[in-house]
Amino acid sequence: MSSVKDCTCDKLNSFKSPWCDADCFVVITGASRGFGRAFAVELVKSMSSGEDHAASLNVLLMARDVNALRVTESEMYASLSTNSKMKLTILVSTSSLDMSNANKDNLLNDLKPLFQLNSLYPIQSNIKCQWNMLVHNAATLGNIKSKSYECYNIDILDTYYHTNLTAPILLTNLFIEYFITNHQPITIVNISSLTAIQPFPYMSDYCIGKSAREMYFKCLSIDNPSLAILNYSPGPLNTNMLTEIIENHGHLDTRIQFNNMKLNHQIIESNESARVCIGWLKKQIPIDPSNINSIPKLIHCLIHDKEYTNLWLGIHLDYFDAVEKV
Amino acid sequence: MSSVKDCTCDKLNSFKSPWCDADCFVVITGASRGFGRAFAVELVKSMSSGEDHAASLNVLLMARDVNALRVTESEMYASLSTNSKMKLTILVSTSSLDMSNANKDNLLNDLKPLFQLNSLYPIQSNIKCQWNMLVHNAATLGNIKSKSYECYNIDILDTYYHTNLTAPILLTNLFIEYFITNHQPITIVNISSLTAIQPFPYMSDYCIGKSAREMYFKCLSIDNPSLAILNYSPGPLNTNMLTEIIENHGHLDTRIQFNNMKLNHQIIESNESARVCIGWLKKQIPIDPSNINSIPKLIHCLIHDKEYTNLWLGIHLDYFDAVEKV
Repeated sequence: MSSVKDCTCDKLNSFKSPWCDADCFVVITGASRGFGRAFAVELVKSMSSGEDHAASLNVLLMARDVNALRVTESEMYASLSTNSKMKLTILVSTSSLDMSNANKDNLLNDLKPLFQLNSLYPIQSNIKCQWNMLVHNAATLGNIKSKSYECYNIDILDTYYHTNLTAPILLTNLFIEYFITNHQPITIVNISSLTAIQPFPYMSDYCIGKSAREMYFKCLSIDNPSLAILNYSPGPLNTNMLTEIIENHGHLDTRIQFNNMKLNHQIIESNESARVCIGWLKKQIPIDPSNINSIPKLIHCLIHDKEYTNLWLGIHLDYFDAVEKV
Repeated sequence: MSSVKDCTCDKLNSFKSPWCDADCFVVITGASRGFGRAFAVELVKSMSSGEDHAASLNVLLMARDVNALRVTESEMYASLSTNSKMKLTILVSTSSLDMSNANKDNLLNDLKPLFQLNSLYPIQSNIKCQWNMLVHNAATLGNIKSKSYECYNIDILDTYYHTNLTAPILLTNLFIEYFITNHQPITIVNISSLTAIQPFPYMSDYCIGKSAREMYFKCLSIDNPSLAILNYSPGPLNTNMLTEIIENHGHLDTRIQFNNMKLNHQIIESNESARVCIGWLKKQIPIDPSNINSIPKLIHCLIHDKEYTNLWLGIHLDYFDAVEKV
């Protein structure tokens, strides 16, 4: 049995962040509001502060609402401390991309400005040089007004899975295809949900989509262990999605349950959950670019985090577990 | 702590099958070969034998290969003992339905002959009268030659999930819509797989499809607890799919692993796995048609099956667990 003297929590503070001194290329989908916007803002705070700040952060924000993306952009610049040494570049997807129409051509078109920016940066194989990340936050709730067996329109179902499953898969594959060539570290964060592992009434679209997406990222990790993959469930958030559930969910008990959670302050603010998620990302030893067989590892305390050793294999990490240990 | 004297295994034998004396209407997809065919044949054996046999079994077999369905039909008739009192009617889907083209119209067209047959049978609300079942066996492997992140064609992905996810959802919904009106028992069996809960290399399509389908059936159970829903993982079977994996899987270790399983006789015959699955279905107390709020229950031994109490809520049941206790 392990004893308290095996605790290595203190030692963890001596590790530097995976983005320390690196040029970072990041894509965030659904960045126009809610958790996506919060993540973008908290990322700037984390990556630009401290001794282990990034050399540069180059972010592509994607969403349908370009005006709202511009607000996210402003908040990101405002979060950067004036004396930060990190160079921040923000690109905004101007194609008003609707994931329900996503295909290889228009996704590549959206990614192209980030790829072009990346091509201007030098790659060296033997020192920490880049740290690249794709954050899948975009998702739609689907039908929450009727029961799972009350849909007879297969086109509606197909469009839902195109938007929430196959478009994110394709975006991931294009991101990996581009960035994998130089064996630089790639981290992929899938914003998941409790619904990925537990069925909820009148929410089969959302449950199936989240469950399927988690399995994709688990398979991806098996197929390429050099990727660091996190399935993060951010907890019940104070976002438009919550309002939609409280106002429009077809199941009265669920409306009451979520409304009570809101009244009882059991709802988490997006910035708080994003901060916790990024705190875990910081506990990463990225792959060594000079060794093409290297695998990212979690910096973890042998006592307090031992069940998270394999976190980057796409294990489901829930906010309520994550917050205890960040 | 429970003691051996609490074991109720012996008592279970006194229960009758859920189809005892009932007119049964059953749809089996992918019935032209492998597990689907085996299930159809074993079902005839189980439902037509013993004191608790069904009054009638009316089966609609669905698959693309109509000639192969005719072989299944012959084997089913051959499995019926000559002195059986059960009336057997077999319908064969003649539309050569390809699930990749499935929509409401052509699925309804396939189901229509069974619905017409059903409409000829009397419905009484206060006695056991019907027992209806939909068995989802049809599935495709998808891409097994390359890694999950090497697909850049979203149409191929979309077609896969149409075939393996949304078409089965729609078929389920149409089946329920028709049979639920008279509050007769409905059982739905989803043929699942270990891949639904565990990622495998080069098999992301199959893993995602199976995982997503299981979640649909779990949601369905939450949305309508009067349905008996089983997610059954039949084990590694001696079918064409196994041959396809041994010959064409992109990952050498997986080809070797499955080939060794075959050489070491660790592969299960479809008829054996189907027999085990049907054995569990037999342990069902169906809903009481006179009580619209009734919920199907598993007949289980308080000692030996206690973890399966909620089996009909779509819990994943694996052959290797199931065979121990049937």
